[in-house]
Amino acid sequence: MIHCISKIRVRYAETDRMDVVYHSNYLIWFETARILMLDEIGMPYSEIETRGLFLPVLTVSAEYMSPARFDDQLEIHLFMKKKPRARIHFDYEVRRGDELLAIGHSSHGFMDRSGKGQRPPEDLVKLMEAAWIEES
Amino acid sequence: MIHCISKIRVRYAETDRMDVVYHSNYLIWFETARILMLDEIGMPYSEIETRGLFLPVLTVSAEYMSPARFDDQLEIHLFMKKKPRARIHFDYEVRRGDELLAIGHSSHGFMDRSGKGQRPPEDLVKLMEAAWIEES
Amino acid sequence: MIHCISKIRVRYAETDRMDVVYHSNYLIWFETARILMLDEIGMPYSEIETRGLFLPVLTVSAEYMSPARFDDQLEIHLFMKKKPRARIHFDYEVRRGDELLAIGHSSHGFMDRSGKGQRPPEDLVKLMEAAWIEES
Amino acid sequence: MIHCISKIRVRYAETDRMDVVYHSNYLIWFETARILMLDEIGMPYSEIETRGLFLPVLTVSAEYMSPARFDDQLEIHLFMKKKPRARIHFDYEVRRGDELLAIGHSSHGFMDRSGKGQRPPEDLVKLMEAAWIEES
Repeated sequence: MIHCISKIRVRYAETDRMDVVYHSNYLIWFETARILMLDEIGMPYSEIETRGLFLPVLTVSAEYMSPARFDDQLEIHLFMKKKPRARIHFDYEVRRGDELLAIGHSSHGFMDRSGKGQRPPEDLVKLMEAAWIEES
Repeated sequence: MIHCISKIRVRYAETDRMDVVYHSNYLIWFETARILMLDEIGMPYSEIETRGLFLPVLTVSAEYMSPARFDDQLEIHLFMKKKPRARIHFDYEVRRGDELLAIGHSSHGFMDRSGKGQRPPEDLVKLMEAAWIEES
Repeated sequence: MIHCISKIRVRYAETDRMDVVYHSNYLIWFETARILMLDEIGMPYSEIETRGLFLPVLTVSAEYMSPARFDDQLEIHLFMKKKPRARIHFDYEVRRGDELLAIGHSSHGFMDRSGKGQRPPEDLVKLMEAAWIEES
Repeated sequence: MIHCISKIRVRYAETDRMDVVYHSNYLIWFETARILMLDEIGMPYSEIETRGLFLPVLTVSAEYMSPARFDDQLEIHLFMKKKPRARIHFDYEVRRGDELLAIGHSSHGFMDRSGKGQRPPEDLVKLMEAAWIEES
């Protein structure tokens, strides 16, 4: 398993007139956690794109339990529980202190600039394996 | 079944540097279809909120098959296939002409201003039943 | 002068917890009016980019008189009062019926893919002149 | 003068297909600097709203010199150069290391929940004066 935590402070622009965070913003936060994870294992996402590879979102889902609000300090937890294959899967938890506000999932596949599917880069797979921690 | 179609033209702001629409924007488009459906059956969403009721998103998911791009003229199809109960469910299709770009699903529950769950308003349920078309 | 009107319906995602439209969204609406104007004179913006030219925003400003709210039906008026030179200038008015909610201004310059400044395309200048209406 | 610096990392969602940050996002970053300044002087913005006061944007402007890009680490500098009166004025600079990418300005006025203009709270004015540094 790979686990990393992106820290977010809710922006005013992210709220809506229901006085909560508009739901699509959670997907943007999920992405900050993916970017951070790639930083932490040693292959920033910008480097992946420099090679002409992209990692688009194929599927995404979220379940909202309790609303995030303006100015909240949140932790966006990313969990990678399956080793990378053609598809890469991530789970997410949005936490405010001990409280779980939302969970999510996304899956991704590598593609080149023309949109053609590609295998994950060898060195990225190795970096993920090096960062892998057995779940207890 | 209730079916309605919201028409969207992709804004520049909705694209990202992959030259496609950033994936979270589809959720905002799904909402335009919900708003339109409520208009069409005769109970605009703003009227629901005027009564002190809200219809927050409880779960949402999307699957992206083919990217939407800047300036695309899209149809956001909403399908309501289950009669409203405590939860309301919607399916979505994002279409560019004959091409299916993405599908989605969302579920919702009514709540009052304090966040307490509420039953769907009687008159709304009746309007939905009046608009119901049997699937062929 | 060139004048065109883009019609907007305020999305829930565009509101904030002050129960008004978050101010940066007006800039996105201004752009819908620029896109529409280019359509109407006969050179869609996507065609300009197909030629390898871009029309980035150099300056932008807005003054907010009265808030736009969820579900408002708005008119975004674009006025081009100066003939195009190295820079192109647009004025904007955001109207809800007879009420003026906001005004704005933006200036733009053509550049190529490398970011180098370019003169406006000859044919675009001619289309703008053909669409020009003398102010009364 | 009051000066504070908000640190931003550019999100993928903030880019557009020109491979730069979409221009309206700078306004959202300006706001992160306002929020931070109010934190630093000791009156978080959320506390102002708890009192039933709001600080909406009356005018905003930006000038874009050089584009911000995905993953950039930016500093959003806020400068308050005039003591608060009925209106409050802020200047902004967006910096990537030594490079100045954009400048901006915004003005604001206090209002109550009904939209009526209000004087700045006495204690906020005192906190601003306490934080004031004479320009050299």
